[in-house]
Amino acid sequence: MHQRFTTIRRHTEDICRPLQTEDYVVQPTTDVSPPKWHLAHSTWFWEEFVLAKHQPGYKRFHPRYAFLFNSYYDSVGERVLRLHRGNMSRPTVAEILDYRHYIDEQMTRFLETLPDNLHGLIEIGLNHEQQHQELLYTDIKYILGHNPLFPPYDPNFRETPALAAATPGFTDMPEGRYAIGYTGSGFSFDNEHAAHEQFLLPYNISNTLETNADYLAFMVDNGYETSQWWHSDGWAWVKEQNVNSPLYWHYIDGRWHRYALSGLQEIPMDEPVTHISYYEAAAFAEWKGMRLPTEFEWEAAANRIAWGHRWEHTNSAYLAYPGYQKPPGAIGEYNGKFMINQMVLRGASVATPAGHSRDTYRNFFHPSLQWQFTGIRLCKKQTW
Amino acid sequence: MHQRFTTIRRHTEDICRPLQTEDYVVQPTTDVSPPKWHLAHSTWFWEEFVLAKHQPGYKRFHPRYAFLFNSYYDSVGERVLRLHRGNMSRPTVAEILDYRHYIDEQMTRFLETLPDNLHGLIEIGLNHEQQHQELLYTDIKYILGHNPLFPPYDPNFRETPALAAATPGFTDMPEGRYAIGYTGSGFSFDNEHAAHEQFLLPYNISNTLETNADYLAFMVDNGYETSQWWHSDGWAWVKEQNVNSPLYWHYIDGRWHRYALSGLQEIPMDEPVTHISYYEAAAFAEWKGMRLPTEFEWEAAANRIAWGHRWEHTNSAYLAYPGYQKPPGAIGEYNGKFMINQMVLRGASVATPAGHSRDTYRNFFHPSLQWQFTGIRLCKKQTW
Amino acid sequence: MHQRFTTIRRHTEDICRPLQTEDYVVQPTTDVSPPKWHLAHSTWFWEEFVLAKHQPGYKRFHPRYAFLFNSYYDSVGERVLRLHRGNMSRPTVAEILDYRHYIDEQMTRFLETLPDNLHGLIEIGLNHEQQHQELLYTDIKYILGHNPLFPPYDPNFRETPALAAATPGFTDMPEGRYAIGYTGSGFSFDNEHAAHEQFLLPYNISNTLETNADYLAFMVDNGYETSQWWHSDGWAWVKEQNVNSPLYWHYIDGRWHRYALSGLQEIPMDEPVTHISYYEAAAFAEWKGMRLPTEFEWEAAANRIAWGHRWEHTNSAYLAYPGYQKPPGAIGEYNGKFMINQMVLRGASVATPAGHSRDTYRNFFHPSLQWQFTGIRLCKKQTW
Amino acid sequence: MHQRFTTIRRHTEDICRPLQTEDYVVQPTTDVSPPKWHLAHSTWFWEEFVLAKHQPGYKRFHPRYAFLFNSYYDSVGERVLRLHRGNMSRPTVAEILDYRHYIDEQMTRFLETLPDNLHGLIEIGLNHEQQHQELLYTDIKYILGHNPLFPPYDPNFRETPALAAATPGFTDMPEGRYAIGYTGSGFSFDNEHAAHEQFLLPYNISNTLETNADYLAFMVDNGYETSQWWHSDGWAWVKEQNVNSPLYWHYIDGRWHRYALSGLQEIPMDEPVTHISYYEAAAFAEWKGMRLPTEFEWEAAANRIAWGHRWEHTNSAYLAYPGYQKPPGAIGEYNGKFMINQMVLRGASVATPAGHSRDTYRNFFHPSLQWQFTGIRLCKKQTW
Repeated sequence: MHQRFTTIRRHTEDICRPLQTEDYVVQPTTDVSPPKWHLAHSTWFWEEFVLAKHQPGYKRFHPRYAFLFNSYYDSVGERVLRLHRGNMSRPTVAEILDYRHYIDEQMTRFLETLPDNLHGLIEIGLNHEQQHQELLYTDIKYILGHNPLFPPYDPNFRETPALAAATPGFTDMPEGRYAIGYTGSGFSFDNEHAAHEQFLLPYNISNTLETNADYLAFMVDNGYETSQWWHSDGWAWVKEQNVNSPLYWHYIDGRWHRYALSGLQEIPMDEPVTHISYYEAAAFAEWKGMRLPTEFEWEAAANRIAWGHRWEHTNSAYLAYPGYQKPPGAIGEYNGKFMINQMVLRGASVATPAGHSRDTYRNFFHPSLQWQFTGIRLCKKQTW
Repeated sequence: MHQRFTTIRRHTEDICRPLQTEDYVVQPTTDVSPPKWHLAHSTWFWEEFVLAKHQPGYKRFHPRYAFLFNSYYDSVGERVLRLHRGNMSRPTVAEILDYRHYIDEQMTRFLETLPDNLHGLIEIGLNHEQQHQELLYTDIKYILGHNPLFPPYDPNFRETPALAAATPGFTDMPEGRYAIGYTGSGFSFDNEHAAHEQFLLPYNISNTLETNADYLAFMVDNGYETSQWWHSDGWAWVKEQNVNSPLYWHYIDGRWHRYALSGLQEIPMDEPVTHISYYEAAAFAEWKGMRLPTEFEWEAAANRIAWGHRWEHTNSAYLAYPGYQKPPGAIGEYNGKFMINQMVLRGASVATPAGHSRDTYRNFFHPSLQWQFTGIRLCKKQTW
Repeated sequence: MHQRFTTIRRHTEDICRPLQTEDYVVQPTTDVSPPKWHLAHSTWFWEEFVLAKHQPGYKRFHPRYAFLFNSYYDSVGERVLRLHRGNMSRPTVAEILDYRHYIDEQMTRFLETLPDNLHGLIEIGLNHEQQHQELLYTDIKYILGHNPLFPPYDPNFRETPALAAATPGFTDMPEGRYAIGYTGSGFSFDNEHAAHEQFLLPYNISNTLETNADYLAFMVDNGYETSQWWHSDGWAWVKEQNVNSPLYWHYIDGRWHRYALSGLQEIPMDEPVTHISYYEAAAFAEWKGMRLPTEFEWEAAANRIAWGHRWEHTNSAYLAYPGYQKPPGAIGEYNGKFMINQMVLRGASVATPAGHSRDTYRNFFHPSLQWQFTGIRLCKKQTW
Repeated sequence: MHQRFTTIRRHTEDICRPLQTEDYVVQPTTDVSPPKWHLAHSTWFWEEFVLAKHQPGYKRFHPRYAFLFNSYYDSVGERVLRLHRGNMSRPTVAEILDYRHYIDEQMTRFLETLPDNLHGLIEIGLNHEQQHQELLYTDIKYILGHNPLFPPYDPNFRETPALAAATPGFTDMPEGRYAIGYTGSGFSFDNEHAAHEQFLLPYNISNTLETNADYLAFMVDNGYETSQWWHSDGWAWVKEQNVNSPLYWHYIDGRWHRYALSGLQEIPMDEPVTHISYYEAAAFAEWKGMRLPTEFEWEAAANRIAWGHRWEHTNSAYLAYPGYQKPPGAIGEYNGKFMINQMVLRGASVATPAGHSRDTYRNFFHPSLQWQFTGIRLCKKQTW
């Protein structure tokens, strides 16, 4: 456990290593947090939920940090509003790194004699830290990718993982009752629990993700100007936000480019399209005469399709499984209270820490958000 | 068909009979349309989709009405923005009634020789008209209920239908595969089609709706001030909108009152609570240690529980059934494009026209809306 | 006094005579009040400030009307928010006319034995009523002119008064101390008081107002696309509101039209341009290499130029004259509290009741507002 | 000139010396720019208006900086929106300092053979730089003062300059024609030009500024809850923004404190009140039965009263003097286009560079802004 703790904590800081001090501070939109906030908040989680609660005589690093770095745990106390995170120049990055190292030391000592009943809590903390590692990548990309100078994060960064090539075409899935939810012995989140069966009708799910070339065909066919492909709310979003391409796409000198973590580049046409919202994924599917899978169809087919390139949009709303139990206390605020107005994504992306995701993992975002590494996998429309 | 057409059309006007001319005009919030708009839009539907398309040589009543009274059919052309409906003093109520009667005459003649293949379209038109009858009640209530003078709509109006008394307690539903969706031979909407089976785990569903007394207990227990019961978005809604009771409730001289269509009155404690949003229904359920049913659980149990008092909140997002096919053309905009960001309600309310709803009927609203006659039916939380 | 009271009160209702009941109700933008609100509010003024205060044993017409029809007098009590006036279908027009007639009767009796010390208050009430007569015209125009059917108010209405023809050219005004403010014995508002002298440098003021043809030349010269002519706030207003012409102008079939109270018509090119905001007037003047007069320059020249066609924009902010005294009590809220963020207009318009305005009259609006009958008179730029 | 250039440029950087890198980046509200933006923009001014225009063969430091650091000069090209300045982590502080030093070198060389006709332009650049020095102080105070940790800028910073003690009481100014505007031979802004005479009635102006104790008396007398003292727009501002004290005031443990550049401290009661908006200054004056001076009254009395503690609110709108000429080209955007919706402040503050202000200097801000070092000097209300 101690080794795993150290490795994961170090990785968080490693992600930030290419940054300039100034990059740690800004918050160009509400959903994007400053990197130094991620560094501090993931640390605060250990202090608040482990050390302050379970380490007798623990002395907090700073009396105000609980206020500054709480994210959304109402039961823990008041907090800085999310949209003001980018206004806080202090504590400095150096002070936050000091905070991290203080907590790392305290945790190292604490883990030496870790009581059995706290293993689960530590695992939550590690998975929480990994979720912020993923957000560090997507938030850093947003910060640098919205700077008029388009500074690269790392010129060698490859956004599309080199995965085993999938056979083009569709996998046919038969009607039946399928096991859904986590039943293994490792870590999993409460939203995957209450494993149960879902009855599915026969379906055909694509072996591959849609590519930039596929998506450009939709754009060229006036996809963003044709209301019939869109949900009503999606169409309103397109009109109000003047959306006309995936996030980070720029039309320069007659050719489509994109900002990637390696810098500005021409669109690689045969790579999976990414940074599209649910609205865009659904409109694209409609235009193509196909549909998005449900999260159950996805999970049932997960061991027959290659996944891991992208968080894949599903047509399932993020809701409780039958039998879902919200854990007591502040940890109960982790998942349950977000089970409204969001859609489920399945899979993993280049930004997901190795080993963090799994077949049963449920990610979720509001349907208008584009800044995650999202992708599109289609199903055929059944007719009976 | 002709008789049914005439009866339904007349009923629309009958609902408006207690109104003053001024009441037909106003739109106190975006979701509430002026009654005269409902009168005109339901008429426009017949003109646009039946007469203009299928009656050779049909002469429109007025060249601009297609622009004025289109609601959301993008494929039919441009239209007045929803939030500006209440700015249009013209056409007057009298002119709109003339429009109605002109269309009624034309339709009467058209129905005399109705081709077989248009029966379905006429049924859609009649059901569309009935949906606006329901909205007329809820919108009129909003208009009069937000007037500082609280004018009654009809002093004899009873908001809670006198239904056969239900036995208190819960109905136990066994695990199994249940038929979902419409399979009969009458009219139904496309969103109920693609009937299929859902596998359900065992559950227990209440025979009765929660009452005003039940809900007041939640309020007295600081339900609106306790974040732990609420979804994150629901909590934000409560804080931003200063919500502290169901819609139409007023605390006057030390007692809770409500505006009903019969006027201002003390809360009848043993009647079902109504005008609560999904957020409130879900928070109430959480406070009570219970949960809302899914729409499938509701439908599977529908013939064992008495329903029809209220549109009942479910914990299901409004999404396509497997195998759902969006109809071609403008009618395809009727349901499919709203399948995001809304939750399903099942049942019927006092405002629903007789015979309009059924076991398989899927109503849907955004989770913050309170102005419909909504209700709460609970399920026990299972534990396995 | 009684005769004058009756004449003015009747005129208010006469202005509304061409309206349909529905036209009395709507409020298409915050600054435009429903005609029935004007009818009621001008009546409330008599009830609140005259009858309730000075008529022993006076019985109010309705206990809630004081709340419903207060406009902005904070010292008189709480009130309906301005932007919600258009949501109130009740009281009906008929009920408000009853209210008017009740008050008229009470006032008639009251005026029979009017104490001397109340003459001033009655005059304020009459001038207040006349100000709402002017607003009735401009608000009715806004309501009908923003209706997609463009219904005429009165086909014979002439928006440009037939005034004695002015000699084109400029009037030269010499340097000197000029008397400013009201010193006569008739009625005047507190903001004209504290008459005093202003020292003015020599200036040249146009004898005529700028015409639609003049203004169209500015438009054709890309006036709305050229930032250099505009104030910074004006430019932001143009961009955010997509302003590209005076209010009520429409480009139809290759020609500019406008909505006038007589209906939609081609722009009469030699009439004074109207419905331009201060921002537009100032940008136009800058484009023309000229400037707007100050209110003092205007007043000093008033008896040498023909005025009365339009409220003329000046380059003076609406501020207190030296020695200005705010009257005590609620009447003190009439003018003083608006002396910030507004610009002065001088003159009168076709909507101004006869005899209501005078050389010293100070009208005022926010610099972005277009819905009044405004006009442009220019001065040459001096160089010393 | 060269010496003066170097001194002023160095002072800009000196002001920033106590900052951490992170402090240079944030923009907690639209009106407050990140310190690194001030450093870059004041440098860009030299590059754009001097070097690029007048130095043959000048090579720009970076091709995109003209876009990044333009503030509001529409005639120079497109620019980053003001409200997004705080989203730009790049260029870094170090890169901006490199930019400064590159320009300083180029300018030094350029100044060696400065043509006579460019002296005026250089003076504008120096005064522009000084204006940003003042903004650096006020913006840094806002950034640190809104941080929950309240970090001091400089523990020894004294916000109230030690000025010669003024005799309490009022100075009586006689009626007369007073010279207004700049007529000297040094530098002055275009808005002070067109010197002319204003005729003033007799008035009495306070020798001293109102203190924190004076202002607290207003607060204790429910000044922020009493509408009668306020302008209508001011009252709306108080209600909407929940204003209940000057900016930076905090009620802690039963005593009023304030954030000063030296850190959090108890309010020094006998020092001049500061960080009050025009709305607050005007309401305070009204409460006290007095009034603010006009800018002409202030200027006429300037050599008889001690000034320099604070930018003093006047009751004059920021408008052109008679005979005002807007300079041609981009420099013409410096002042003229802001002459609407703002009020004039006279004097100087602790943040104003030595020698930058003068009797005739016209500062201006929107009436709701509090973040400048503002103050209140009163006049008696005249009665004639």
